[in-house]
Amino acid sequence: MGSNKESTTAGKAIRCKAAICRNAGEPLIIEEIEVDPPKAWEVRIKILCTSLCHSDITFWKMKPGPLSDFPRIFGHEATGVVESVGDHVEEVKEGELVLPVFAPDCGECRDCRSTKSNICSKFSVSSGQFGMPRDGTSRFRDMKGEVLHHFLSVSSFTEYTVVDVAHMVKLSHGIPVDKASLLSCGISTGIGASWKLAGVEEGSTVAIFGLGAVGLAVAEGARLRGASKIIGVDLNPEKFELGIKFGLTDFVNPSTCGEKSVSQVIKEMTEGGADYCFECVGLASLMTEAFRSSREGWGKTVILGVEMHGSPLSLNPYELLRGKSVAGALIGGLKPKSDIPLLAEKYIDKELNLEQFITHEVSFKDINKAFELLLGGKSLRCVIWMDK
Amino acid sequence: MGSNKESTTAGKAIRCKAAICRNAGEPLIIEEIEVDPPKAWEVRIKILCTSLCHSDITFWKMKPGPLSDFPRIFGHEATGVVESVGDHVEEVKEGELVLPVFAPDCGECRDCRSTKSNICSKFSVSSGQFGMPRDGTSRFRDMKGEVLHHFLSVSSFTEYTVVDVAHMVKLSHGIPVDKASLLSCGISTGIGASWKLAGVEEGSTVAIFGLGAVGLAVAEGARLRGASKIIGVDLNPEKFELGIKFGLTDFVNPSTCGEKSVSQVIKEMTEGGADYCFECVGLASLMTEAFRSSREGWGKTVILGVEMHGSPLSLNPYELLRGKSVAGALIGGLKPKSDIPLLAEKYIDKELNLEQFITHEVSFKDINKAFELLLGGKSLRCVIWMDK
Repeated sequence: MGSNKESTTAGKAIRCKAAICRNAGEPLIIEEIEVDPPKAWEVRIKILCTSLCHSDITFWKMKPGPLSDFPRIFGHEATGVVESVGDHVEEVKEGELVLPVFAPDCGECRDCRSTKSNICSKFSVSSGQFGMPRDGTSRFRDMKGEVLHHFLSVSSFTEYTVVDVAHMVKLSHGIPVDKASLLSCGISTGIGASWKLAGVEEGSTVAIFGLGAVGLAVAEGARLRGASKIIGVDLNPEKFELGIKFGLTDFVNPSTCGEKSVSQVIKEMTEGGADYCFECVGLASLMTEAFRSSREGWGKTVILGVEMHGSPLSLNPYELLRGKSVAGALIGGLKPKSDIPLLAEKYIDKELNLEQFITHEVSFKDINKAFELLLGGKSLRCVIWMDK
Repeated sequence: MGSNKESTTAGKAIRCKAAICRNAGEPLIIEEIEVDPPKAWEVRIKILCTSLCHSDITFWKMKPGPLSDFPRIFGHEATGVVESVGDHVEEVKEGELVLPVFAPDCGECRDCRSTKSNICSKFSVSSGQFGMPRDGTSRFRDMKGEVLHHFLSVSSFTEYTVVDVAHMVKLSHGIPVDKASLLSCGISTGIGASWKLAGVEEGSTVAIFGLGAVGLAVAEGARLRGASKIIGVDLNPEKFELGIKFGLTDFVNPSTCGEKSVSQVIKEMTEGGADYCFECVGLASLMTEAFRSSREGWGKTVILGVEMHGSPLSLNPYELLRGKSVAGALIGGLKPKSDIPLLAEKYIDKELNLEQFITHEVSFKDINKAFELLLGGKSLRCVIWMDK
C-alpha cells in the first residue's frame, strides 16, 4: 500500500466533515469528526456524492427508541472510492469505485447462496443497529470524543465512512458517480421489483401507488419491459407530468375519484384489475387498496413501502383464493453484489434512464436543502456533492 | 343417438332418487325427483359414486341468505357417465366417463387461454348460484313440482345431474371410479397446491395447517416431490398416524405447545421457518400463523381454506419485505380439463396414492352417515355408492 496515494491515511483515523443529526427532526449540523480505520472485513470509503431517500427522513424524524438514537450520521445512497481496507478484504482495493449498500450480501449464508433469496441470514437489516455489523461498535467520534451512531450499515452523510465488505458493491469506473449513487437503494428497488420480483411482461398492466423515486423506478422498469398501461396513483398531480418521462400512461388522483375507490377506478381502466400492483408509500391501507386493484387469476401485488405506523396489512382471503398473490422485498429482490452491476451496465448501454431521477443537486454544506425538497414533494433525488 | 342404450332417456326428464337438503343442518332426505334433459352446452350425467367434502358441510349448515337457499342438492365430488348431451356439446358423448367439477374451464376466455390463471372469467364459482351457469335455471324438481337448487354447478347427491360442459372433465376408463371421484375437488386441490402453486422441491420443508383430505393431499404432493420435512398441524392427534401414510414426518398439536406459538415451534423445527406453509382449514388466524411459520427470504404461504367467518387476513407487512409471499387458489391452481387427467394418469402409473384417502364407503341410502363421519373427524373421504 506504500506506493498508493491513499496510503498516507491508511491505518490511521481520518479527520473529516460529516453532517450530524443531534436530535430527531432537527437540521443536520456539519462538524468535524474522526473516522476510525477499517477493522477486519471492513472498508473505509471516501464518499464522492450521496443522495437522500425517504427512509433517511423516516428515521431522522423518529424519537429515540429501539430503532432510533442520536447523535447519528444518516445517508445510505452514495458512491465512493475505497480509501483503505481492513484485513481479509480481497474484493476491493484502494481507489476502486464502490457503492455502499444497506442490504447485506455476505455470499456465504444459505440465503446468499440461493438464487431465491436476497435476505442475507448472516447479517441483518435493522435501523436499530447503531454500529458495525460484526462487532456493533461505531467508527465515528465527534471532536469531544462522543460516539456517533451508524445508520443502516452505511452512513454516507460524511466525507469518509466505514462499511462492512458485505455492505458494498464494486462498480467499474464507466458510470458517472451521481447516476451510480441512485443504484444503491431507491432506483434499484423499483427496477428490481418490476423485473425480478413481479416479472412485468410485455403488454401487461401495472398500477403504482406512490410516485416517489421508487414508484417511478417501477414505472421505468415496466416501460422497458413493454407494459401496455402504467397507471400512477398519487395525491400530488405534478407527479404525473414527471412520471410520463418514466413511462406512465395514466394517472389516478385518489382525492378526485369522487365516490369511487381507487381500486374501482383502476379495475375499470384495466378490464377487471391490473396484472401487477406496487405499493411504494408504506401505508397498510394503501397496500390493501393495491391488492384490491389487482386482477383475479394472476394479479400480483408487490409491497415495497416500509409501513410507517406499524399497522398490519389486511387482505380479503377470498381474493387470494381467486388467484391473487402478495409479495414483498427489500431492494426490489435484487442481490446487491451481482445485480446492481448489471443495472449499471444497462445505464451505460443507454437502456436505463437514470438522469431524470436527479431533479436537484446541492453541495454538502447545503444538505438540509435536500431534506426540504424531499419533504415538500419537490424532488425525486437530490444529489449531494461532497467536494462542492 | 337412437342406437345407444342410453338413448331411451335422452331428451326426456328422468325420474330418479336424490338426497335433498330441505333445511339448514337437517339430515338429507332421499326422494324421487325429476331431472330435466340437458339444454345447449349441457351434459346429463349418471352419477356412479360421489363423496363428501367440507364445503358441502359449510353450506349445508348455512342459514338461508345470499349464498344459501333450500331445498338444495349438495355434492360436488363425483364420477359419472354421460347419459346424454345438449346441443353444441362435442367434447363428450353418451357412455363416456366424466368428473363434474365445481371450477369452470370454458377454454375460451382470457384466463382459460392463459397458463397463469385457473379462474375462468366467463363463468363464476359461487355457492350463491342456485341454477345452471348459462341461464340460471334449475334442472331439478321434486314430485310436487317444487324447484330444487343446484350447488356449485355440480349437485352430485342424485342419481342423475346436469352440468355445463365447462364444469366437466373427461377421463379415460382406466381409473377406478371411486379413486377418480377424489380428483374432482379435495385431492386435486392439495396436490395442485403442492406441485403447481407452491412448487415444492426436493429437500424443502413444508408445514400443513389442517390435516383433512386437502391437507393430507398437500403432504402426498410434497412427499412425491421429495420434501425433507413435512410437518402436520392439527388438534386431532389421530391425524398424525393417518398422515404418516401420506409422508408426514412431524406433527404439531397446537393444544400441547404450552407457552409457545405454533409458529415458534415450527421455526425451531425448521431452522427459521418452513419453505412452504399451507392453510387448509379456513381460519384467518391460522392463515396468519402459517405466514409467521414461513421462513424469510423465500417462504411462501398458500391459502386453500375458505375462511369460515368472513374474517380478514392480517399480515405483518415487514415480514413481506423480508421476502415472504402469500398466494391462494381454488382447486390448487389446476386447470381442470388439462390437469386432472394428468393426475389420473399418475394414479394409474402407481405414482399417486389415492386409496388411502378413502377411509369409508356407504351406500346412497346411508348418505347421512358420511356427514356424521366427516363432522366427527373420523373420515378423510367417504365414498357414497349410488347403486348400492
